[in-house]
Amino acid sequence: MSLVIVGSLAFDTIETPFERRERIIGGSGTYCALAASFFTRPKVVGVVGRDFPRTAIGLLERRKVDLRGLQVKAGKTFHWEGRYGSDPNQRTTVRTDLNVFRDFQPLLPPSYRSADIVFLANIDPGLAGPVLNQLRRRPAIVALDTIRFWIETKPDALFRTLAGVDIFFANDEEVRLLAGEGNLIKAGRRLLGRGPRVLVVKKGEHGALVFTPDFVFGVLAHPCEDVVDPTGAGDSFAGGFLGSLDGAGRRGPAQIRRAAVCGSVVASFAIEDFGVERFKTLTRKEIETRYLGFKRLVSF
Amino acid sequence: MSLVIVGSLAFDTIETPFERRERIIGGSGTYCALAASFFTRPKVVGVVGRDFPRTAIGLLERRKVDLRGLQVKAGKTFHWEGRYGSDPNQRTTVRTDLNVFRDFQPLLPPSYRSADIVFLANIDPGLAGPVLNQLRRRPAIVALDTIRFWIETKPDALFRTLAGVDIFFANDEEVRLLAGEGNLIKAGRRLLGRGPRVLVVKKGEHGALVFTPDFVFGVLAHPCEDVVDPTGAGDSFAGGFLGSLDGAGRRGPAQIRRAAVCGSVVASFAIEDFGVERFKTLTRKEIETRYLGFKRLVSF
Repeated sequence: MSLVIVGSLAFDTIETPFERRERIIGGSGTYCALAASFFTRPKVVGVVGRDFPRTAIGLLERRKVDLRGLQVKAGKTFHWEGRYGSDPNQRTTVRTDLNVFRDFQPLLPPSYRSADIVFLANIDPGLAGPVLNQLRRRPAIVALDTIRFWIETKPDALFRTLAGVDIFFANDEEVRLLAGEGNLIKAGRRLLGRGPRVLVVKKGEHGALVFTPDFVFGVLAHPCEDVVDPTGAGDSFAGGFLGSLDGAGRRGPAQIRRAAVCGSVVASFAIEDFGVERFKTLTRKEIETRYLGFKRLVSF
Repeated sequence: MSLVIVGSLAFDTIETPFERRERIIGGSGTYCALAASFFTRPKVVGVVGRDFPRTAIGLLERRKVDLRGLQVKAGKTFHWEGRYGSDPNQRTTVRTDLNVFRDFQPLLPPSYRSADIVFLANIDPGLAGPVLNQLRRRPAIVALDTIRFWIETKPDALFRTLAGVDIFFANDEEVRLLAGEGNLIKAGRRLLGRGPRVLVVKKGEHGALVFTPDFVFGVLAHPCEDVVDPTGAGDSFAGGFLGSLDGAGRRGPAQIRRAAVCGSVVASFAIEDFGVERFKTLTRKEIETRYLGFKRLVSF
């Protein structure tokens, strides 16, 4: 039972219609690790500059995230700036300063190399090989999340990586784009044919759909009245999903269904405050209560 | 146990990216009555011209729909023409010829006047009073569906009608527009404050949300690979919902949840073929099988 997350740790500058926050802590690896930490003890592989604050490291440490794979380099931390309109599903990237993330070479400490689950969180699909080659044996699950940027700039590398992936996370727009098919169900089945055994389609406020060759599972999003900051919702979803799966030990249909609900639950907390703020106070008890709420939400 | 549906019976001309169909049978009342007919024996109030085909009447009769409230007038039947893009949720109205529907004065035969449920399906909100005044007593449930046209042209009449309604059906765009609020959950709660005891938000391929003061219930859409013609999906949803509720007799939370699933199930069949074609062959057995599929889809 171990989950390795390879992703970014970053500063985010975020503007919503109501508020602007400068250089708060973000990054796919950060969100994912914090979300997963409620279900297992994730190990992070990433890189930050010397400007990355001690308090952020402290938060990850308090959540018992293993940071032996975190490199600290001379230079500045990755900085992303984005703006949300009144529809929180629509965001514009204002600026991306890759900084030390530009030449990121993931290096797995020896204690990471027997991982059961390895998650490549929005990183360059070309890095999949170099990461997996460091492992002693193929992990039980290789999971991948991607972003529009890689679909548009490195589609071939992405499809090559996809062929060797067990669980693929993408949002509905990315699934349609990758499959070249407007109907989401058809697009999903088409992507399943490209390699992954499980495709998880994240649909924001509409929840998520899990496709496998044997079943389709749908999970709703928590009916949230106050979306403060949607940043990191998808990463938190993946973190909750994989953390739950890692914590469960077994990986059958029942565990996959519960993993999707855990992903949706944790993501619903993440968006209740800016950045990773909500993870500072979130408790396992709150997660369990909302998990039961998800059951009531769809029971008939 | 009786359900009265006041709505349109029409010719539809429909263009999808794949096919065009001229003057096929449609109308909110038609879809709704056919959908409801799998759960109860609906009574229709509507008007057609002398050009309305005998075969369409025959289909409704075979489905045991009570047509004593159907007026046949000299003149032409309501004709709507619409076009769908590659996204079936986006449609453009090309043409609307109201014809005999322009001066529609709903008249309830004596046998309709003790109805338990009365559904005003997309008709002018100003007609609610004249319909309800014909009843011997207030029905247990007054239900209303509306369209963007009435929201934009008769918002005051719509809100007045809404104040006396028990179940209000609207799609997500209409809910946001009516509430003047972008967050769907907030918008839903706001509309609940304007009168209805139950608000059903139809979200197309994303399913539906049911808001009541006591609970929120979410139902997914059936994962449909081939949306042939989305016309009438919302009307079929409402028909399945109200038909199920009428057939159940009781109207508690459990019946409301099941009604929403029945609505989603019947709507998922309606879009599998053009117009009302699918209702010609649909069986109660197929509905039951898909209903169980909906349970598996969300079970965890």
